[in-house]
Amino acid sequence: MSDSSTLALAKDLISRESVTPEDAGCQEVMINRLKKLGFEIEVMVFEDTTNFWARRGTSAPLFAFAGHTDVVPPGDVSQWHTPPFEPTVIDEYLHGRGAADMKGSLACMIVAVERFIESNPNHQGSIAFLITSDEEGPFINGTTRVVDTLMARDELIDMCIVGEPSSTHHVGDVIKNGRRGSITGDLVIKGTQGHVAYPHLANNPVHQALPALSELVETTWDNGNEFFPPTSFQIPNLHSGTGASNVIPGEFSVQFNFRFSTEITSDQIKSKVHSILDAHGLEYELNWTLSGQPFLTGSGELLKSVVKAVEEVNHKTPELLTTGGTSDGRFIAKMGSQVVELGPVNATIHKINECVSIPDLEKLTDMYEKTLENLLG
Amino acid sequence: MSDSSTLALAKDLISRESVTPEDAGCQEVMINRLKKLGFEIEVMVFEDTTNFWARRGTSAPLFAFAGHTDVVPPGDVSQWHTPPFEPTVIDEYLHGRGAADMKGSLACMIVAVERFIESNPNHQGSIAFLITSDEEGPFINGTTRVVDTLMARDELIDMCIVGEPSSTHHVGDVIKNGRRGSITGDLVIKGTQGHVAYPHLANNPVHQALPALSELVETTWDNGNEFFPPTSFQIPNLHSGTGASNVIPGEFSVQFNFRFSTEITSDQIKSKVHSILDAHGLEYELNWTLSGQPFLTGSGELLKSVVKAVEEVNHKTPELLTTGGTSDGRFIAKMGSQVVELGPVNATIHKINECVSIPDLEKLTDMYEKTLENLLG
Repeated sequence: MSDSSTLALAKDLISRESVTPEDAGCQEVMINRLKKLGFEIEVMVFEDTTNFWARRGTSAPLFAFAGHTDVVPPGDVSQWHTPPFEPTVIDEYLHGRGAADMKGSLACMIVAVERFIESNPNHQGSIAFLITSDEEGPFINGTTRVVDTLMARDELIDMCIVGEPSSTHHVGDVIKNGRRGSITGDLVIKGTQGHVAYPHLANNPVHQALPALSELVETTWDNGNEFFPPTSFQIPNLHSGTGASNVIPGEFSVQFNFRFSTEITSDQIKSKVHSILDAHGLEYELNWTLSGQPFLTGSGELLKSVVKAVEEVNHKTPELLTTGGTSDGRFIAKMGSQVVELGPVNATIHKINECVSIPDLEKLTDMYEKTLENLLG
Repeated sequence: MSDSSTLALAKDLISRESVTPEDAGCQEVMINRLKKLGFEIEVMVFEDTTNFWARRGTSAPLFAFAGHTDVVPPGDVSQWHTPPFEPTVIDEYLHGRGAADMKGSLACMIVAVERFIESNPNHQGSIAFLITSDEEGPFINGTTRVVDTLMARDELIDMCIVGEPSSTHHVGDVIKNGRRGSITGDLVIKGTQGHVAYPHLANNPVHQALPALSELVETTWDNGNEFFPPTSFQIPNLHSGTGASNVIPGEFSVQFNFRFSTEITSDQIKSKVHSILDAHGLEYELNWTLSGQPFLTGSGELLKSVVKAVEEVNHKTPELLTTGGTSDGRFIAKMGSQVVELGPVNATIHKINECVSIPDLEKLTDMYEKTLENLLG
């Protein structure tokens, strides 16, 4: 039996060693397929990152598939059962770096669009692809800059499916219809260094800060809502001390990170943190890094169409979740777009022996095609 | 005017570059002076450290002067106004590394003993010197091993003056009649590493530990007593985190140090810390390092004689304190000895441009001599 169109394309993409921010020719493969379908192609290179924007049609609504051709490094290759950049089928699973995150999804998108256009050459609205090679890297020169370019010329995506691996046990059991925001605080609490034997001449910033940090940990920031779990606070890093056991340190560095729901804004978080630190009389410096605002597609045509497509394939209603890490969906949502993420099972992503179920790839192709039919057919 | 005997000897010792654990011939200078007075000399070399024990007389009580010939490194020599190992007199101050800590004291001891023996050739009891070159280093092969040797043969010091710079503004304003104990705990709190986006799958050891650490900081360990300030708890060092802002750490390292009074024992401290950590349900490892038990010479012949000697010279009663860092007094006190520390002003010790008042050296010589007269005359 020869490979299906989806499987063949997925293998082709996996065989290209596109460790972030390399694209290794993946986008050219996709572009060649899309050109044949009448897409207009715009390659956008920013610094070390290759991106492309492809569009078929000029009318509204503008529907887009979004994704990335870059992959995370394979890690210790000797631990892989198969070479990470030689796509290999074992027991109905396609193995290789990027199989699930997200070259499999890219293949499904292309094949779904090919099929849809074959049966709907004069579809409503417009279909687009927003593809980057910077999703696994610093996400500076990828989706966010393409979005800036589109927004500058007022070309706004109305609806977008991001092909990130959203599923837990089988494809389509979970659709991500939003993501939490992420904001990081780098806090330095100031004290006065001194000798442990003379504590009255020093001011230990660790001692000063402990009650405030306890309060930050114990604070309920919000209770979440129908779509979001409660906002979470975590301290991933902290440090103080000279290394000597007889020196009271002069500074205490604490880094904390919020994953926040739509029930609180990043400004409200900042304000509340500052008021807690101030209430404890701390002297400090605090620098904030906003990685992404939360977004939510709680209803609308897109969500309805995707859910219906998944139900048609799976005969089961998908779960709508907003858990997990950030994705490029946050950048696209800035345009006011409806955004959902639908892709394969994420159990092996970023791991040794990454793989994806081949029957799931076929189902995902069907889900994408049916979504197009529901929206633009 | 030629140098006094004390000043000449202090200069001689300072000119020898005895950066710890080097002795650089200082002990030989002292030994030659003591031999002439009829002392029996026992050089004790342990590993890299030279020590000596000198004794004159066989009867009780056994009185000893204790001190060290090693000095801390000079640091950035270009910042010194005078070369650190070229003793230089400026405005009645003798400048040089070790002038105050404690080559000045050593010179005073030798000259005081010479004068005392000249007028009391048949003094009561015994006079001894316990001199090390390891007080500023790791204090492994110095006083503690000499003390072990003496204890093994049941030769116990009854009374001891340590020549550490005990004074604040002028010589003899403060006598240290004890020192706090010091014990360090190295604590590792165990958690479960994970992704910041999935806090329910991880267990942040920093979050777990904060309430317990707050309680340790807020605990009153004792209220001190007539001679000791309250026991103090300090966190000199702590660390957690992988460096990544999206990873919940799996371990949290905290080092803490107690300076403790005679109102609490090191075992009581350990037990109380464990009970606080256990009450908070923490999983942890905790390793203890006891640097020294507290000691106190609250009364007795020695303290009475030293106070009287200081009063005779200064016409003012010295303050008795137990503050400050540890000293070799803690090792000598293990013998059950009465121990006090009396030496010059400590304002410049371990610093650039260390110096000592020359009139204070003359007074200190008198104080040591009068103490001998009070005790053994």
